[in-house]
Amino acid sequence: MDFDLTDGVAVLERTPAALRTMLAGLPAAWTDATEGPETWSPYVILGHLIHGERADWIPRAQIILAQGADRRFVPFDRLAQFRESEGKSLAQLLDEFASLRAESLRTLAGWRLDDAQLALEGEHPAFGTVTLRQLLATWVAHDLGHIAQTARVMAKQYREAVGPWRAYLPVMDR
Amino acid sequence: MDFDLTDGVAVLERTPAALRTMLAGLPAAWTDATEGPETWSPYVILGHLIHGERADWIPRAQIILAQGADRRFVPFDRLAQFRESEGKSLAQLLDEFASLRAESLRTLAGWRLDDAQLALEGEHPAFGTVTLRQLLATWVAHDLGHIAQTARVMAKQYREAVGPWRAYLPVMDR
Repeated sequence: MDFDLTDGVAVLERTPAALRTMLAGLPAAWTDATEGPETWSPYVILGHLIHGERADWIPRAQIILAQGADRRFVPFDRLAQFRESEGKSLAQLLDEFASLRAESLRTLAGWRLDDAQLALEGEHPAFGTVTLRQLLATWVAHDLGHIAQTARVMAKQYREAVGPWRAYLPVMDR
Repeated sequence: MDFDLTDGVAVLERTPAALRTMLAGLPAAWTDATEGPETWSPYVILGHLIHGERADWIPRAQIILAQGADRRFVPFDRLAQFRESEGKSLAQLLDEFASLRAESLRTLAGWRLDDAQLALEGEHPAFGTVTLRQLLATWVAHDLGHIAQTARVMAKQYREAVGPWRAYLPVMDR
């Protein structure tokens, strides 16, 4: 499937509500659960998505659209949320993500991007040349990947509790 | 994590709204997308969850609670949704799932299950002896597995569109 701006935005605008309906009001046994050492809980994932709104998607799109001499992206800090979420409740993170995402999508809509702009290039610190279209497709896929991860992390908490049904639940061993 | 009825129900009651916020109003390019031949789209997954409300979780719990001479479960039809969803829109399926799930949870709450009841046994056609506690834990994990699948199926539609970022998106190759 090719990237389509309207269809992509349709997913991006649903992500905060999807995570809210999955997580708001759940006991910490679910929202702080992980898949083991060095893996992320739903709470940590939410902080990571928040940092992405601030430091990744829109800032990188801006670098591409500016087409300046230096189009190299600032490397993304994959551990920023451990600092930035400190002292915040899950409910606060859900609100913060929803508000930042809405702002990101207002900025994106304001650009009224056309195909020529979507083909503009920037420089990823690891991959080299990437297009704005690829960046926006990645934003969408990254959301969906973390929704999948959130559900998977939670499912795994019942890995033992399901008894023999584990054989029918591939999510337990992904 | 041990199965806890209150915490488990907290997940079960959120699933219809989670799928609604993820899927309602999306173009068919997303909701009919699959991971390839013989794999399921979000639309198909929703039909499968609906069939589970009718034929799996509560009916099997009833067999266990009855403690009759024959405690063997009726085998679950994993393809029922291809018949039963026919002619229905995604919006209809979302409504149907929400309404059946609410009814299932009313039935479950009405039983006021205690630990002794949760330890009662039934007979799974493939696994043999299973407990009510394992059945209910599986219901929760099964929901979460299919939420994860829904997001993963959608993410994979942009497998090519993300370009080199695929290397950073493990969901693309799960």
